[in-house]
Amino acid sequence: MKIVYHIVFGLAYVLSASVAYCQTGKVFDDLSLPSEILGGERKYAIYLPPDYETSERSYPVLYLLHGAGDDQTGWVQFGEVLHIADQSISSGEATPMIIVMPDADTGRRGYFNQIDGKWNYEDFFFDEFMPHIEKKYRIKGEKRYRAVAGLSMGGGGSMIYALHHPELFSSSAPLSAYVGPLSLEEMKRRMDTENYTDEELKAYYENHNALSLIEQVSEEDKGAVRWYIDCGDDDFLYEGNSLVHIAMKKQEIPHEFRIRDGGHTWTYWRKSLPSVLKFVTQAFHQY
Amino acid sequence: MKIVYHIVFGLAYVLSASVAYCQTGKVFDDLSLPSEILGGERKYAIYLPPDYETSERSYPVLYLLHGAGDDQTGWVQFGEVLHIADQSISSGEATPMIIVMPDADTGRRGYFNQIDGKWNYEDFFFDEFMPHIEKKYRIKGEKRYRAVAGLSMGGGGSMIYALHHPELFSSSAPLSAYVGPLSLEEMKRRMDTENYTDEELKAYYENHNALSLIEQVSEEDKGAVRWYIDCGDDDFLYEGNSLVHIAMKKQEIPHEFRIRDGGHTWTYWRKSLPSVLKFVTQAFHQY
Amino acid sequence: MKIVYHIVFGLAYVLSASVAYCQTGKVFDDLSLPSEILGGERKYAIYLPPDYETSERSYPVLYLLHGAGDDQTGWVQFGEVLHIADQSISSGEATPMIIVMPDADTGRRGYFNQIDGKWNYEDFFFDEFMPHIEKKYRIKGEKRYRAVAGLSMGGGGSMIYALHHPELFSSSAPLSAYVGPLSLEEMKRRMDTENYTDEELKAYYENHNALSLIEQVSEEDKGAVRWYIDCGDDDFLYEGNSLVHIAMKKQEIPHEFRIRDGGHTWTYWRKSLPSVLKFVTQAFHQY
Amino acid sequence: MKIVYHIVFGLAYVLSASVAYCQTGKVFDDLSLPSEILGGERKYAIYLPPDYETSERSYPVLYLLHGAGDDQTGWVQFGEVLHIADQSISSGEATPMIIVMPDADTGRRGYFNQIDGKWNYEDFFFDEFMPHIEKKYRIKGEKRYRAVAGLSMGGGGSMIYALHHPELFSSSAPLSAYVGPLSLEEMKRRMDTENYTDEELKAYYENHNALSLIEQVSEEDKGAVRWYIDCGDDDFLYEGNSLVHIAMKKQEIPHEFRIRDGGHTWTYWRKSLPSVLKFVTQAFHQY
Repeated sequence: MKIVYHIVFGLAYVLSASVAYCQTGKVFDDLSLPSEILGGERKYAIYLPPDYETSERSYPVLYLLHGAGDDQTGWVQFGEVLHIADQSISSGEATPMIIVMPDADTGRRGYFNQIDGKWNYEDFFFDEFMPHIEKKYRIKGEKRYRAVAGLSMGGGGSMIYALHHPELFSSSAPLSAYVGPLSLEEMKRRMDTENYTDEELKAYYENHNALSLIEQVSEEDKGAVRWYIDCGDDDFLYEGNSLVHIAMKKQEIPHEFRIRDGGHTWTYWRKSLPSVLKFVTQAFHQY
Repeated sequence: MKIVYHIVFGLAYVLSASVAYCQTGKVFDDLSLPSEILGGERKYAIYLPPDYETSERSYPVLYLLHGAGDDQTGWVQFGEVLHIADQSISSGEATPMIIVMPDADTGRRGYFNQIDGKWNYEDFFFDEFMPHIEKKYRIKGEKRYRAVAGLSMGGGGSMIYALHHPELFSSSAPLSAYVGPLSLEEMKRRMDTENYTDEELKAYYENHNALSLIEQVSEEDKGAVRWYIDCGDDDFLYEGNSLVHIAMKKQEIPHEFRIRDGGHTWTYWRKSLPSVLKFVTQAFHQY
Repeated sequence: MKIVYHIVFGLAYVLSASVAYCQTGKVFDDLSLPSEILGGERKYAIYLPPDYETSERSYPVLYLLHGAGDDQTGWVQFGEVLHIADQSISSGEATPMIIVMPDADTGRRGYFNQIDGKWNYEDFFFDEFMPHIEKKYRIKGEKRYRAVAGLSMGGGGSMIYALHHPELFSSSAPLSAYVGPLSLEEMKRRMDTENYTDEELKAYYENHNALSLIEQVSEEDKGAVRWYIDCGDDDFLYEGNSLVHIAMKKQEIPHEFRIRDGGHTWTYWRKSLPSVLKFVTQAFHQY
Repeated sequence: MKIVYHIVFGLAYVLSASVAYCQTGKVFDDLSLPSEILGGERKYAIYLPPDYETSERSYPVLYLLHGAGDDQTGWVQFGEVLHIADQSISSGEATPMIIVMPDADTGRRGYFNQIDGKWNYEDFFFDEFMPHIEKKYRIKGEKRYRAVAGLSMGGGGSMIYALHHPELFSSSAPLSAYVGPLSLEEMKRRMDTENYTDEELKAYYENHNALSLIEQVSEEDKGAVRWYIDCGDDDFLYEGNSLVHIAMKKQEIPHEFRIRDGGHTWTYWRKSLPSVLKFVTQAFHQY
């Protein structure tokens, strides 16, 4: 019996080794950093690719933004980012990359600087979060190796961030994006406007909706970001996304656009994610 | 004896299944009928499903319209209708159906009655062509068994025909459709207007562009036709199709809408065709 | 027993039906037509696609030329044209097409008009053979539906024919082609020159080698023919094919060029044939 | 007990096989060594095969050179060397090997000694880098276990290195190689010639372009290196590669030559890499 015990113990050891060697990526969903801009600790989740711990190379990075109602765990729990990224990398469709999922504190105010100056998330993202992450992990720090994607409110984040900072992202993949208010009037209806002049409101509007920003894209920036925009045919955000497609066409901004069968659901987004990883990989690969 | 009988019978059953699997449909691409409305012989092509000659049943029908520059042979030669329909039927995704491909005399004036009354193709289609075809072939003559699809100019044909005649088609599948002029002004720029009053032009416009017709759809007709609308993200007809999607959403007209990767090409349409056959089959199947 | 007999007989009938319906193409390898230009009967082989007999449509055509030492049966016996074309059509990679394989009377003088005027095969091909074939079979008679390919001496034929007649072929696929003499001196060494002036020889040379003809291609003809040129890395005809690649690049004539592993063998050409069928299909499909 | 033992042993055997299958290699992309010849630290990346840490054997080595504009991380990030080598080794097509990717300091002067003597990279490679690497890692130090490959500027490096040192490499695989200037005049146009005599320039030219070096290959060296040369049909370096093929044929230097569909892109080279690993393995395996 003792022999059997040793053999079985040996087997268990071999098995644990096998787990170690059959590399998969790792996900952490409760990390945080202190923020002076927003105050307090800000949470984030991260996906590290299968070879992160065994190899000693640096990686491209994808910032992947959650939607309203979720937090940094959304893409982990509902989006199956670990399973899907592992599969895409293992099949060769995606290059190993680090995927960073910040919490936009959904209950409050999303990915942008608010007009009242009390929630400057976009400042936080570019001045505190991104530098912190790209120093802490082995991330290549150049534009060509940086992408942003997201869904719904986070689709809006990924769209506006890449329009605000074409010098920072080689590709952007907004899914079922809220592209911002479709008119100044719509914005006014949605917010408390009494403390702001019309000029202030107009300026804020023009800087926080995709249609205005697309019109302002300069000639030299038209190919600066590779776009992958995707929105289900049953999605309630159909209008903004269709108008963005039309506006980009008229502005001659190259972009991929997809409308597949489906609504504003995680079923849809889980099916989008492999295409997003493949798409951002094309830039990371230099084709 | 009984055992032998059963074995042989079983064998025959297996073999007959095999025969069914091996059958292929037939295509004729140079048929014609005389037309009083248009004058002269009008050509068409037809696909008869694999079991058309061996069975004695009647079939549903799909009218499949070519684009500008092609004729009735377009879907046969470039669209591979024989191969694709055979495959869809053999896999069970599509029900056996008859596919009719009329020639719209591309060099002249397409699928509609022209404002000058010299080319009344829509009259020809509904008063001469459809009755002729549905009498000559074993076609079920009811709305639920009749569908229309087409590409580009023929996409426009399939869209407008089904908007004009929701009582005749259970489904319509416009691909890369020219949905008509997007404004009265656009129509005026495209045609010789001097012989017509503004009222006549406006009336013609409102009856020959999808956006106006969608606005006019009555409450009871909103679910009368099942729609499958598909247009590549690189297609130059992006605007009309995107606006149709928005308009149908606002009118709460149920419809499937797809934007896949691609342009105004047969490569795109050959990939659309199996989805079209599957979609019209759902109506033929009563779901 | 009688019942068993009837059942078995019925089964045999079902089986024969199954054979009839499981369509494959047909090959005839001993057809001929009378030629006034060459004198006597000229042989050819033909492949008719699986649906040729059941459908009543017209088809694109590929002229497929044999090499020196073979005759019209070469592509049938050694090239497995029936099996390979059936497979390519059944998989959807190739469109149903008619493949015509003329005999160039190998023992004599190949695909061109000879300088002595005693063997005007090129005249025969365009004035007698092609018209005869395209009338006898249901062949679409337009350039876009006509291609030419061939191997070795027939690779030269397909290359020179398409250079002489860019108005007749939408694509050309020379395999392991003998592209003609690489210099006037080489041509003189190979032929009996005593009866011809230097001008006559030079004129004949310039009209019967690919490098000279490529230099003469006019600006408007540069995209007139789609080229697929393929030659193994162990082929003794490496030089002419590599120089054609360089010359076409310098002339900015679009062309596909492949060098795979292999020599001047049927093993190589059987592997090329599916790519050729797929390539000519792209033009037949209008992409 | 015996039965249990055998079952458990069998299980352990199966599991250990599974462990071997699951192993992946390791990549380091930011290593360096000091160089007296070039001055300062010189960077390199390295791939260690899956069993490098668990076994204690020595390995063959492939030097894999990047192109102009990249550095030692090029094959890691764009070339997916980890994923592709792991797969080739796991499938058995490639033998476990160490892959070394030096940085040629692209911004400066590439893989050769410059004529002004200020950048003697080739000296560095053979006198400092190779000895350092082959001492630091468990590398077999003999010619038969050493290969060199590269792309573009690195394709030129791998071609010229193996022509200069047939005694050091059993195989060489230049991809989309810049084979050096195609004439002395071309070289003069590309460099600052004023400080050099014609003899010096001619000598430098003859020692740094593939066509001259191929002409100089001695009879006994003709089979000394196994060559795998590959260049897309849309690559702008078509001429040099085609002329190298012709020159090697005329010199009767055995070589594999491929032209596949594609241009001067990482998409092309990622598809080449498995063939390169398989090819160099044949020498490492002694066939």
